[in-house]
Amino acid sequence: MTDVRVAGVGLTRFGSHADRAGRDLFATAAERAFADAGVPRGDVEELNYGNYMGALAEHQGHQAPLMAEAAGVRCPATRYESACASAGVAVREAVRTVAAGDADVALAGGMERMTNLPTDEVTEGLAMAADDLFEVRSGVTFPGAYALMATAYFDAYGGERRDLAHIASKNHANALPNEYAQYRREVSVDEAMDAPPVAEPLHLYDACPITDGASALVIVSAEYAAEHDVDAPVAVTGTGQGTDRMALADREHLARTPAADDAAEAAYATTGVGPDDVDVAEVHDCFTIAEVLATESLGLFEAGEGIGAAREGVTTADGDLPVNLSGGLKAKGHPVGATGGSQIAELTRLLRGDHPNSEHVPDAEVGVAHNAGGTVASAVVHVLEVAE
Amino acid sequence: MTDVRVAGVGLTRFGSHADRAGRDLFATAAERAFADAGVPRGDVEELNYGNYMGALAEHQGHQAPLMAEAAGVRCPATRYESACASAGVAVREAVRTVAAGDADVALAGGMERMTNLPTDEVTEGLAMAADDLFEVRSGVTFPGAYALMATAYFDAYGGERRDLAHIASKNHANALPNEYAQYRREVSVDEAMDAPPVAEPLHLYDACPITDGASALVIVSAEYAAEHDVDAPVAVTGTGQGTDRMALADREHLARTPAADDAAEAAYATTGVGPDDVDVAEVHDCFTIAEVLATESLGLFEAGEGIGAAREGVTTADGDLPVNLSGGLKAKGHPVGATGGSQIAELTRLLRGDHPNSEHVPDAEVGVAHNAGGTVASAVVHVLEVAE
Repeated sequence: MTDVRVAGVGLTRFGSHADRAGRDLFATAAERAFADAGVPRGDVEELNYGNYMGALAEHQGHQAPLMAEAAGVRCPATRYESACASAGVAVREAVRTVAAGDADVALAGGMERMTNLPTDEVTEGLAMAADDLFEVRSGVTFPGAYALMATAYFDAYGGERRDLAHIASKNHANALPNEYAQYRREVSVDEAMDAPPVAEPLHLYDACPITDGASALVIVSAEYAAEHDVDAPVAVTGTGQGTDRMALADREHLARTPAADDAAEAAYATTGVGPDDVDVAEVHDCFTIAEVLATESLGLFEAGEGIGAAREGVTTADGDLPVNLSGGLKAKGHPVGATGGSQIAELTRLLRGDHPNSEHVPDAEVGVAHNAGGTVASAVVHVLEVAE
Repeated sequence: MTDVRVAGVGLTRFGSHADRAGRDLFATAAERAFADAGVPRGDVEELNYGNYMGALAEHQGHQAPLMAEAAGVRCPATRYESACASAGVAVREAVRTVAAGDADVALAGGMERMTNLPTDEVTEGLAMAADDLFEVRSGVTFPGAYALMATAYFDAYGGERRDLAHIASKNHANALPNEYAQYRREVSVDEAMDAPPVAEPLHLYDACPITDGASALVIVSAEYAAEHDVDAPVAVTGTGQGTDRMALADREHLARTPAADDAAEAAYATTGVGPDDVDVAEVHDCFTIAEVLATESLGLFEAGEGIGAAREGVTTADGDLPVNLSGGLKAKGHPVGATGGSQIAELTRLLRGDHPNSEHVPDAEVGVAHNAGGTVASAVVHVLEVAE
């Protein structure tokens, strides 16, 4: 496998951009990524782009050519849709393309607009990531689905609402210095506990918000970086993807996410590192319980021990293994089709030492990103390492 | 590049399946592909799946995990959306994955349901493949867009409505023996000429129909085929993809399709063959004029000469270079997200000699497939060759 590097990252602020077209958001992210990379647009050989619900939000399918225009590149451009893992899959394809030697430079990322829709339409749109015939028509939406998963987890391994509140509070704290975060305000554990219920045992601060935003990454081969004097110290050493049954009713265990297990196993397999080597992680905390499940699938904690780690502060900024230093989906925000790219961007900044939260992980050399679709029927995991 | 083979192909009948769920259609196509290939489902390492408007037609995003279930495979599963080229892109990814040695067996294809929607909603859904801000809101839908392209072609190179009617009549004749075709009835040139106008110069028989259907292909490495005694005589020797500006107003020339030029150039580049070696072609005739543009982009005819070739019968079943022996999108039908896979399936059958129209190309060794998205803002080209 060719040595694959992240040459540059670009993000819009996450939040409400209801008055900006999707192509405009992606143009901003791409412009920042090219500026960060110092790579000319003309060198890009492929655009891998994630978007989930553009058909509903902007009456716009076939977005990849539009985003190529917006980014100022002319090359094969493809849209990937894997629900909330859309950008993770897009980044994965860019990594695989460069790894295979099919391209030296790829642009990857994603975009989502959501806040321009009425809230009930957003909820309906998100529900499309579950099984329409056997879940949605029975009334399942995502807060309810993840509530079932949280309940199953508590039943199997113990834990309680207050443990999840620690995760919400932690991620809000992490988002405070992040210039791209949607919510930059503290939420105490007690405040999270006192918030109104959404679907028991999940309350308001257990859920990520509705967010607009875009992410872009310039992915290059190490050879290209060396030849063109591009500073790209962070390598993508592993990529993995997994798939599970779609409907919760068809799963063996609601408190396990085997798609993410598979993705993690495949991602670690091509690296010289394992879970014990991970210094920092960005994981898919669409709900607080999802962060617990993610850290266990990544092997950072044993099954059933992720909740205790959260309770005991192991995953806080100053804990042994900081998780979601960006603020996570919870506080940084979750523009569905952009999120997977944002995670890699944030990890890259953390590993380079230029993230506002880098001070908490000054010696970090190995990072892992976990992006999930639906109730983790899809999962993508990437391993990033400081290469030089 | 690893030697990549088509081990098996599966199609549903194209037409109206308004009462069948999308997963059901894909299950049928996949079942037929596995039966044709003689490859066990458990060997599949990746599913590459195309779908365009499932969010509108079935309120179902995140379709790839559902389709993995329907096909009976458990592996990374991804949905690709590139408008009417969605399945072409999906097949391309499967080919690249096997070519790169990342997998020995991939399942690729696509599905679309359209006839369950009211016709005006289908038209609106298809329009999402154009630029919503700068085309659709000005009233452009696809018949109008392709009418502009036909007018530009006639202005630049000559030709007239009757030439296009020859293409409609030819493709309807080709569909007659095809068990998967939506329309199996003859349409004479005069009948096509007498049909009501849709958007001048295009009349009813210049347009493809609204279609439901699914396609599936089992793509394997030649090494896997040899080791497992799988009969896979057709190789995919070239794959290419191109992208153009989305809006017609931003293009230099409405009668050229540079995205397809780029895709064809890239596809031929890895092969030992060129346009002069092509024995049979399946091209994206969403409108009759599109077939002309496609054959020119593929290099089968010089710019401006495709229309004459159509008029003179060069591309008929018994002509020098049969185009769309399947019946094409025009008569076989166009289930948008399945079409690109169907083209490869039909070409494979033609090259293996087991297509109902194989008698017209008994010595065919080289086939080319051309799949386009929107007004060819996206294009994918594949070269297939008889390998043994």
